Amino acid sequence: MQLEDLRTPCLVLDRGILKRNLERMSSAIHRHGVSLRPHLKTAKSAAVAEMAVAGEAGGITVSTLAEAEYFAERGFLDITIAAGTTPQKLERVEALANRGVRLNVITDDRDTASAIAAQRAHYKAFIEIDSGEARGGVDPFGEDLLEIGRTLGDKLKGVLTHAGHSYDCRTVDGIQRVAEQERNAVVTAARRLRDAGLACEVVSVGSTPTMSHVERMDGVTEARPGVYMFGDLFQAAIQSCTRDDIAVTVLASVIGRRPSHNQILLDAGALALSKDRSTASTDQDAGFGLVLDIDAKPAFGECIIEHAYQEHGAAVGEKNRPLPFDSLAVGTKVRVAPNHSCLTAAAHDRYYVVDGSREVIAQWDRINGW
Amino acid sequence: MQLEDLRTPCLVLDRGILKRNLERMSSAIHRHGVSLRPHLKTAKSAAVAEMAVAGEAGGITVSTLAEAEYFAERGFLDITIAAGTTPQKLERVEALANRGVRLNVITDDRDTASAIAAQRAHYKAFIEIDSGEARGGVDPFGEDLLEIGRTLGDKLKGVLTHAGHSYDCRTVDGIQRVAEQERNAVVTAARRLRDAGLACEVVSVGSTPTMSHVERMDGVTEARPGVYMFGDLFQAAIQSCTRDDIAVTVLASVIGRRPSHNQILLDAGALALSKDRSTASTDQDAGFGLVLDIDAKPAFGECIIEHAYQEHGAAVGEKNRPLPFDSLAVGTKVRVAPNHSCLTAAAHDRYYVVDGSREVIAQWDRINGW
Repeated sequence: MQLEDLRTPCLVLDRGILKRNLERMSSAIHRHGVSLRPHLKTAKSAAVAEMAVAGEAGGITVSTLAEAEYFAERGFLDITIAAGTTPQKLERVEALANRGVRLNVITDDRDTASAIAAQRAHYKAFIEIDSGEARGGVDPFGEDLLEIGRTLGDKLKGVLTHAGHSYDCRTVDGIQRVAEQERNAVVTAARRLRDAGLACEVVSVGSTPTMSHVERMDGVTEARPGVYMFGDLFQAAIQSCTRDDIAVTVLASVIGRRPSHNQILLDAGALALSKDRSTASTDQDAGFGLVLDIDAKPAFGECIIEHAYQEHGAAVGEKNRPLPFDSLAVGTKVRVAPNHSCLTAAAHDRYYVVDGSREVIAQWDRINGW
Repeated sequence: MQLEDLRTPCLVLDRGILKRNLERMSSAIHRHGVSLRPHLKTAKSAAVAEMAVAGEAGGITVSTLAEAEYFAERGFLDITIAAGTTPQKLERVEALANRGVRLNVITDDRDTASAIAAQRAHYKAFIEIDSGEARGGVDPFGEDLLEIGRTLGDKLKGVLTHAGHSYDCRTVDGIQRVAEQERNAVVTAARRLRDAGLACEVVSVGSTPTMSHVERMDGVTEARPGVYMFGDLFQAAIQSCTRDDIAVTVLASVIGRRPSHNQILLDAGALALSKDRSTASTDQDAGFGLVLDIDAKPAFGECIIEHAYQEHGAAVGEKNRPLPFDSLAVGTKVRVAPNHSCLTAAAHDRYYVVDGSREVIAQWDRINGW
């Protein structure tokens, strides 16, 4: 089967680019003597996870209970669920743990820590640390840290943070400063727990920008980046990768042409691409995605999706560079590079896998939902 | 089962509000002697479609081939697929037509019209008309209209437009002007086709804003609004409905609290809510959604999702009105009203149906994908 034969819109994954991205991050992390626990929130696919854990210890990170259940069923038995849990969610955690999955949850809440401690099932919990983003996590210098550590007791696994504010940086220098902030927060928290006589086996950090540029990881034992596997236009704009490193694209068909506006209409709109506009805050604003030709080459220059309607994407060519309308008949297939691959991929239920050509060499499933 | 028992995040649909919305639009359309062909792109659910066609002629509108196939399998046998088709997509159209579905496609392209005309299967095609949005459609005064009409021959069903630029209006007056532009465009196109000796049986318009306020529909035979069924914060902001008319909400759990920032963290982020920011262009900016209590009451004032991360929604209360943190423990359930219900609903595979209380009276499936 060739890309030309596929129904559109659909999600295309280039295995060669994926492999290169995996190897680059693996080297970057191992250079620091730290283990890599890849975050599968972007890929949500067992086939991708198998490639991502090759040469690693085998543990993975996920963002939802549905992902944890999906991966456990497919033989991944060492899983960290890296979004704050609740007492009500512990029933599903317990069920997974009782099936033999080595499971870690995270919390920054005293009551939830009590609920975790009260459960008999053998699983562990990280204390989530705020390293500057002010999203989730306790202050590494605060009293909650020690109180939650004591409450968790035998269930305490370590400390964990995500420096999501690295996404606000626009220079490598800035990202490196956030990486050091990230490291410092968890290392401080780990030291305070240990000084209080509490075990803190794992010290975990991770965001793709910080892990792409981090200079120093003393005291850190584990990294959990995710979007590095696929890359996207936003990660390229903030220098975590280049546009050539983007492994996922949406295959779309031209469904309309408007030469007077230098515009083509695609059958990939807000549902197939997502309404993510993260590149708007960078100097490489790509609208709702960058239109490439069927071979994923930038044949149309900066032809970007300016309007994303539910099922229509209106792509406009560069000023003074008319699109080649003669070769863009209705039905012509193009590929759209995403702003944010985590969100774009989640609109689709499978990957059509290629490896540098138009031949579809595999279909890989993926899990959505909760 | 009660809302308290559901896994979060998930999608809740209030049947009573839905019914009221359906009746309101039905009256508004019938007042003009025009038939209602509800657009199921928002609901994508056979159970909702059954309610929406009650008292109507029975025809429905959809936006994708996957929707057409889903509804055909469930006994809906009169379907307009209202997004521009391509020659490559006609194979699936033909297969549906050969199963006995009365099918209409739309096109604004001469080559696609030729491909449609060349097919033996009994289905029909609308010529898409641009009524001012400049997304899809031919100029009602242009030569393409007649050429495509002649090419379609026996397959010509009529003319169709969608005044999507009504979404740019902020006053009822403005919406009424767009409604008249919408009407005028298709009525003009229909007259020109008929003057050229071509049959033009159906004259079809439709957007929820225009159909909510239209004053005059002479010459129009059919209306195809969609989002009126569920409403959303954007439609409320542009006066297609009120906030009390919003029928779908996302049930979410509190997973973190940060009183210093008057902030709660929910397990509904960009994937569960979408990254739609349509209310940002209105005077009722609701971030990525408005947080209500579990009974869908506005108990927290203008508490809006300011940041939508992949799986986290950070909701911030009003200035000088601290959130009631004592009743927002981790695990507490709240409901989030969406900016754009079409996109939010598409993140979910089912509706948990309630009717004014917390009791879940049904689960209704929905179709996603293409």
